[in-house]
Amino acid sequence: MTVGVYGLGRFGSFWASQLSTRFEVVAGTRDPARETPPGVRRVELAELGRADAVFLCVAISALEPALAQLVPHLDDATTVLDTCSVKKYPIEVMRRMIPEPIELVGTHPMFGPDSASGGMQGLPLILSEARASSETYRRWHREFTALGLRVVEMGADQHDHEAAYTQGVTHVIGRVLKEMQLNKSLIGTLGYRKILEVIEQTCNDPYQLFLDLQRFNPYTVEMRDRLMHSINKVVRDLSDY
Amino acid sequence: MTVGVYGLGRFGSFWASQLSTRFEVVAGTRDPARETPPGVRRVELAELGRADAVFLCVAISALEPALAQLVPHLDDATTVLDTCSVKKYPIEVMRRMIPEPIELVGTHPMFGPDSASGGMQGLPLILSEARASSETYRRWHREFTALGLRVVEMGADQHDHEAAYTQGVTHVIGRVLKEMQLNKSLIGTLGYRKILEVIEQTCNDPYQLFLDLQRFNPYTVEMRDRLMHSINKVVRDLSDY
Repeated sequence: MTVGVYGLGRFGSFWASQLSTRFEVVAGTRDPARETPPGVRRVELAELGRADAVFLCVAISALEPALAQLVPHLDDATTVLDTCSVKKYPIEVMRRMIPEPIELVGTHPMFGPDSASGGMQGLPLILSEARASSETYRRWHREFTALGLRVVEMGADQHDHEAAYTQGVTHVIGRVLKEMQLNKSLIGTLGYRKILEVIEQTCNDPYQLFLDLQRFNPYTVEMRDRLMHSINKVVRDLSDY
Repeated sequence: MTVGVYGLGRFGSFWASQLSTRFEVVAGTRDPARETPPGVRRVELAELGRADAVFLCVAISALEPALAQLVPHLDDATTVLDTCSVKKYPIEVMRRMIPEPIELVGTHPMFGPDSASGGMQGLPLILSEARASSETYRRWHREFTALGLRVVEMGADQHDHEAAYTQGVTHVIGRVLKEMQLNKSLIGTLGYRKILEVIEQTCNDPYQLFLDLQRFNPYTVEMRDRLMHSINKVVRDLSDY
């Protein structure tokens, strides 16, 4: 099986390398300056679109323009899988922009080159139905499992709701605390050191990823409203005394 | 040397036991239902006030009524040390309510029965000047060091400023996230697990301690204003896109 990767940013390069341990991997990118990872063959879109499967590894906000370029080259037999950290939006976009009978599968690999530096064994990958036969969907479930990943099946809606209240809230808190310019302290408690770790975990990611995760997840508006409501309540309760 | 402990709540009982490894310890409390820890002798205030030193182990908000009861019994030669998690307020109260020549020393033992369950070796204790001769102050520096503690000298003002932006902000964040009723999730990231740990670290403490730390530290109002400013900025920047 030949597997394509569209987008050779930090995640795409990493993912292409990982896939090359099991598949013949071809990669395409809109940016000619990107390096081609070892074990991966760089191809034009015309060839990429004929791979048995193509993983979309572009920023969420770049999904529509990237698909506009790729779709004319897709073969009817090619399966398209996204890798976005939200699921409803990319699945809707793929369904709208990619014609049938091309099959679609949603994935959210919950790791990257940092967290998988010691290997991918046991790391979680979320699998969401998009528009594929049961056979195609099950095949990818088996392939990810064979790569050592812990596959978690979850609908796009549930995924985005849980993501808003886990990753989404964590990243907002991290950015807020970063904005406060907190420092290490001789009197830092254990809890405070965890706060500093949250800042480090979240603010090393590009700001664009933060923006995309918040803007393209339909539940983050509600999550941020609840966060503001909670902080107003806690602060108001303090001034009542 | 006979050392007294006033207040046999969770911290006072723990502290009295720890001190009894090195001193003859007597303890007094306003609550007759409190148990007396092993190795400690329960005494009336009249005897407690004649100890060579008395540690105040009452809630910050109970400091003034506790001193109103204790002060008439204090001997001129007794040194009084507080153990509050803020430093400006208790030192001001002690200076105002305890007459000279009684000597005063401020301490903030940054641990409790949970964090010191494996022993006190290397745990930090903040030492703040209040109203004592250099000789008395140095003697307590040596005594705490001999107990295995890591003594950090810090003025009350600096202590409270740093505490507001470390412990103070951590506890507000913990209470806010608790208020949001976040749950464990299959798709929880490493950063999110640290967020859950912050909630656990902060919300196991009594709400009264949270209130006291926020109300009796003069820098927490400014800290909470900066937190609100930061969260408003982060959320506004998101809606600008």
